[in-house]
Amino acid sequence: MSTQTPFKIIALSGSLRAGSYNTALLHAALELAPAGLDIEIADISDIPFYNGDVQARGFPAPLEALGAKIADADAVLFATPEYNYSVPGVLKNAIDWLSRLNPQPLENKPIGMVGASMGNMGTSRAQYHLRQILVFLNAPAMNRPEVFVGAAHTKFDEAGKLVDGDTRKFFADYLSAFEAWVGKAKALAA
Amino acid sequence: MSTQTPFKIIALSGSLRAGSYNTALLHAALELAPAGLDIEIADISDIPFYNGDVQARGFPAPLEALGAKIADADAVLFATPEYNYSVPGVLKNAIDWLSRLNPQPLENKPIGMVGASMGNMGTSRAQYHLRQILVFLNAPAMNRPEVFVGAAHTKFDEAGKLVDGDTRKFFADYLSAFEAWVGKAKALAA
Amino acid sequence: MSTQTPFKIIALSGSLRAGSYNTALLHAALELAPAGLDIEIADISDIPFYNGDVQARGFPAPLEALGAKIADADAVLFATPEYNYSVPGVLKNAIDWLSRLNPQPLENKPIGMVGASMGNMGTSRAQYHLRQILVFLNAPAMNRPEVFVGAAHTKFDEAGKLVDGDTRKFFADYLSAFEAWVGKAKALAA
Amino acid sequence: MSTQTPFKIIALSGSLRAGSYNTALLHAALELAPAGLDIEIADISDIPFYNGDVQARGFPAPLEALGAKIADADAVLFATPEYNYSVPGVLKNAIDWLSRLNPQPLENKPIGMVGASMGNMGTSRAQYHLRQILVFLNAPAMNRPEVFVGAAHTKFDEAGKLVDGDTRKFFADYLSAFEAWVGKAKALAA
Repeated sequence: MSTQTPFKIIALSGSLRAGSYNTALLHAALELAPAGLDIEIADISDIPFYNGDVQARGFPAPLEALGAKIADADAVLFATPEYNYSVPGVLKNAIDWLSRLNPQPLENKPIGMVGASMGNMGTSRAQYHLRQILVFLNAPAMNRPEVFVGAAHTKFDEAGKLVDGDTRKFFADYLSAFEAWVGKAKALAA
Repeated sequence: MSTQTPFKIIALSGSLRAGSYNTALLHAALELAPAGLDIEIADISDIPFYNGDVQARGFPAPLEALGAKIADADAVLFATPEYNYSVPGVLKNAIDWLSRLNPQPLENKPIGMVGASMGNMGTSRAQYHLRQILVFLNAPAMNRPEVFVGAAHTKFDEAGKLVDGDTRKFFADYLSAFEAWVGKAKALAA
Repeated sequence: MSTQTPFKIIALSGSLRAGSYNTALLHAALELAPAGLDIEIADISDIPFYNGDVQARGFPAPLEALGAKIADADAVLFATPEYNYSVPGVLKNAIDWLSRLNPQPLENKPIGMVGASMGNMGTSRAQYHLRQILVFLNAPAMNRPEVFVGAAHTKFDEAGKLVDGDTRKFFADYLSAFEAWVGKAKALAA
Repeated sequence: MSTQTPFKIIALSGSLRAGSYNTALLHAALELAPAGLDIEIADISDIPFYNGDVQARGFPAPLEALGAKIADADAVLFATPEYNYSVPGVLKNAIDWLSRLNPQPLENKPIGMVGASMGNMGTSRAQYHLRQILVFLNAPAMNRPEVFVGAAHTKFDEAGKLVDGDTRKFFADYLSAFEAWVGKAKALAA
């Protein structure tokens, strides 16, 4: 892909915690991404709670900024924790706001999703809820491979670096597969 | 039930909008509840975004107050909008915080859920996600009847009063069924 | 599309009942399809129950025949009833067998889904379960529009013909959208 | 519980394969059950495919026999494989028939569910679909603990005996918890 412009990817973590494994997984993506992916981690912490009365007075500036980034990107990559067998409220709230923008920036936007948890499931229950949410948003989500990083506390070091070799290899392969799929999925928006 | 203490019910709306149909549905519940239910609508708007780093410094006071109300109640009634085919981020965020309290106040707490939307589905997709969330919380949810108020804009008046006769009757019957079920479901916590 | 070969679509109904509204919906698809779709309704009634011991002795002939039809098709269209808030066992069983074929015929196959029911929901709960099933099968499913034909008994006549004008219009538009999407989604398999 | 009649439990496996890990898990339940549970494994292999036209001519005898067993039982225990991220068609088909009996035998029947798979997830995706199915059936399902036996090929021996010590301990504890919960959940049907 060296002669092509890389795909611009906006990456969103569903956790606000500084030491979040899911945010750390996005930092690993920056490190492991193939040359064809230009990943930028965007922030959702400044977006207020969704409230239709607030919307009626105007969209919050941080939401409009995030919406513009997504609109300009080729794809979005979510790293979602699993809280209570579903998507974190914080992440869902950002999506609830994004869905109100016009044009809606996730429309036809290719989507990848990954997750890390201390348990075995690697946020799978949250990811299937996120997939249903994306049906409404009309955003095509890559089916396979899925990224469920379990036992996360054994795979990242104290500084939040992904150090488990098998996971690094698997995740690098995922990102290459995502690059290839984004290239094809862009046809869906044509 | 006149000689018994009524069941204390904490009711939570998933919408912050002043004119919310879901909040209006809870106001209808106050009006239509049988004598055996003492319903209090509690507020979630003062609970901040969940962040593990914030939690490490101490639970927010509004969260602790809500947790105490729920712990003291016999049951909880959710009125959930459906945003993007799932539970609103605002409501999920309150649940994400509540789940961190120790003791966790929803543990073994009997749950009812209802919803209103302008479309046909009456928030059913959100309610099934909420049911999965409640599995993690170990809170028993009443299976039936389910309350899916569709075409909500035709059933409430300008002031937010539930005026559709069939819906009033159905909802009053639901609340009576909920009262009976709460009485039985309390056995699950014994 | 008149100068192009139409897309070959294999359509599967999840009901074995002769008077099924879902099978009737597929017959309406034959009638309403644009010139660019060549739809064939295939049968799942001769496929036995999935049993790994049976598989070890060889795939049933009707299953292999169905798999070959799907492998040769450009896309698959499911019409699913909703039984007990999910996909009928009969339909799931056919999918369980199809998933064992090698190559797996639904891999990368573009998918449409529709449903009809006598209630309001139009089989939506079944369709979201089917969408999760398709994630495993790595089959891209069209997100939108969704087809939820409620109150089906008022929309088909005694002979099973779709007679409701609005539904005919909506469904014809759906089929045109499906044609356009299949043309783009085929790029995902390239 | 020695002086009380044990609870009668009908156990259903979602796999027809002779060497099924899920059927093996039910055999382990017979071995590990506390004195207060009398578990009988019932068969679903003789129930035909659901077809409303067949139903109109009368319920199949094996279905009526299974329905009678369930009606007489105190609770039902499902062991479900996960096929294609959902409940096997074979098991769903049995449920589709059971749901048509009148009275419906699963109405208010306390439910446990367990599953075993060779992967990590232990059939969790199938179990959450089964939980949604049970909402329709108005059958209360125990929330916790959940039984997800992953890496099943390392936990059963060649003869299908559960030999992994930690899993035996966990499953025995589960069955004791199920006994206690059934005793309480029976109140829901009163």
